[in-house]
Amino acid sequence: MRVIECVPNVSEGRDQAIIRQIVLAVKVAHGVELLDWSADADHNRTVLTYVGEPEAVLTATEALCKAAFRLIDMQKHHGAHPRLGAVDVIPFVPLRGVTNEEAVSLARRLGEWIGEQGVPVYYYQEAATRPERESLPDVRRGEYEGLAARICSPEGEPDAGPAVFNARSGASIVGVRFPLIAFNVNLATDDLAIAKRIAEAVRFSGGGYRYVRAMGVALEGKGQVQVSTDILQYEKTPIHRVLETIRSEAASHGVAVAGCELVGLAPMAAFEEVIRHYLQLHDFSVDQVIESRLLKK
Amino acid sequence: MRVIECVPNVSEGRDQAIIRQIVLAVKVAHGVELLDWSADADHNRTVLTYVGEPEAVLTATEALCKAAFRLIDMQKHHGAHPRLGAVDVIPFVPLRGVTNEEAVSLARRLGEWIGEQGVPVYYYQEAATRPERESLPDVRRGEYEGLAARICSPEGEPDAGPAVFNARSGASIVGVRFPLIAFNVNLATDDLAIAKRIAEAVRFSGGGYRYVRAMGVALEGKGQVQVSTDILQYEKTPIHRVLETIRSEAASHGVAVAGCELVGLAPMAAFEEVIRHYLQLHDFSVDQVIESRLLKK
Repeated sequence: MRVIECVPNVSEGRDQAIIRQIVLAVKVAHGVELLDWSADADHNRTVLTYVGEPEAVLTATEALCKAAFRLIDMQKHHGAHPRLGAVDVIPFVPLRGVTNEEAVSLARRLGEWIGEQGVPVYYYQEAATRPERESLPDVRRGEYEGLAARICSPEGEPDAGPAVFNARSGASIVGVRFPLIAFNVNLATDDLAIAKRIAEAVRFSGGGYRYVRAMGVALEGKGQVQVSTDILQYEKTPIHRVLETIRSEAASHGVAVAGCELVGLAPMAAFEEVIRHYLQLHDFSVDQVIESRLLKK
Repeated sequence: MRVIECVPNVSEGRDQAIIRQIVLAVKVAHGVELLDWSADADHNRTVLTYVGEPEAVLTATEALCKAAFRLIDMQKHHGAHPRLGAVDVIPFVPLRGVTNEEAVSLARRLGEWIGEQGVPVYYYQEAATRPERESLPDVRRGEYEGLAARICSPEGEPDAGPAVFNARSGASIVGVRFPLIAFNVNLATDDLAIAKRIAEAVRFSGGGYRYVRAMGVALEGKGQVQVSTDILQYEKTPIHRVLETIRSEAASHGVAVAGCELVGLAPMAAFEEVIRHYLQLHDFSVDQVIESRLLKK
């Protein structure tokens, strides 16, 4: 079974009737599994997470967009979170048996469809058409309120859909990103400086691993500190390598790793390299996990 | 999704037309996935491996039995492998979300059904009704040829079905066993004595782990030796503990672990404790693996 994840951010986090209908559009969609959804009233925004085969996820996302375009009027929208439109951002995340290229082509098919609904579309991150659109904050600059002016300018020209301001729905930002692993390492010390120094050592911005973001955090209740990491591409920088580097750095301060946390979900593939490494199973593949066979149907 | 595995051994390994029909009975069964099947002409025996939800696996197994009882005549059967009947042994292996008790109750339901077809049934291992029937070789003692006499004796009384010799189909042995992990550790030495000594140290019979069988094997082509293990209950004796004990024992001889092998398949749950251990993810659960959510449908 090929699996892609979609995590749309919709600009409504207060009106329960509207939220319910948007969530329902995904819930009733055939062949997708809604893993999570949460509405935030301050942000006035709802985030959904669902997975399934690429075609099923595409169809579910179209249903979600249809509901959101029908129910949300951006002219009345206010909230703390930056946004460009009713369906603000739609990231696709390839999880299993789906290449980056296939995910980008799926994102572009959705973009074309959204464009046909009269809503301008920008592609971002892996699906971006120009370097200056790779970063989501860059694409969202000026927000909904600045869109009418921006959409007519060369740098605001949409990647799909009409180059015309849609007052009701704004614009949608569609893209592809890698699955992110939120992996935290707790250290048996209350010395925050050590956690901060190690975070600096492992993260890309400090000269560390290319696909790692990290920060040092105090865990007040525990009397411990934490190196909190995001692993952006676990195939290139696997979890165990980040842990072992943190362990080695901590040991040089006489500090042990007290325990770790995986926040949220991760695909089976994120553990393939971990199992290969620690069990020295150089030929191990997730295909040897019986559940993989059941998903292949 | 709850998953149980079934690994029936059928007493026909030569007649391709018969083998094909028996395999087909499982292949066309709804909701089960045939992972593997292999026929051995010397043993005159075919082994199938399939998985699915318990009810689907039960139905598929009844279909397989129906085909085998119809097509196989034990009066004409000869082969190297010990056997008691046309469908000789039917082990159920609980893999995911199925308790031992549920698996035993499934095995007993199959046993009742086989009994209703006029074929005597013995329950073995986890499904055994008496201690002397736990071991499969004990149940199979005397084989098909001794069954006519044995079935009338108190110690040969079947657990289900008629206490009457069925000349055509013999008897069936139905049971429940744990999933077995075949895990091999290769050592960077050609000294077989070291592998044998370590195998003795980790296996139950030598005073080692309760659920481990092991032997030392020479890997001629590689110039290495192997500690070949079977882990009978990975929840009680997890894979990493066996590896780390072998590593420690090998190190005391100045020998390193060159690499490991997982033979065949293993359920996701067999890696849960491995990931918890090495990544120090004390709260990790296979429910955090996205694919688990897809199987829950």
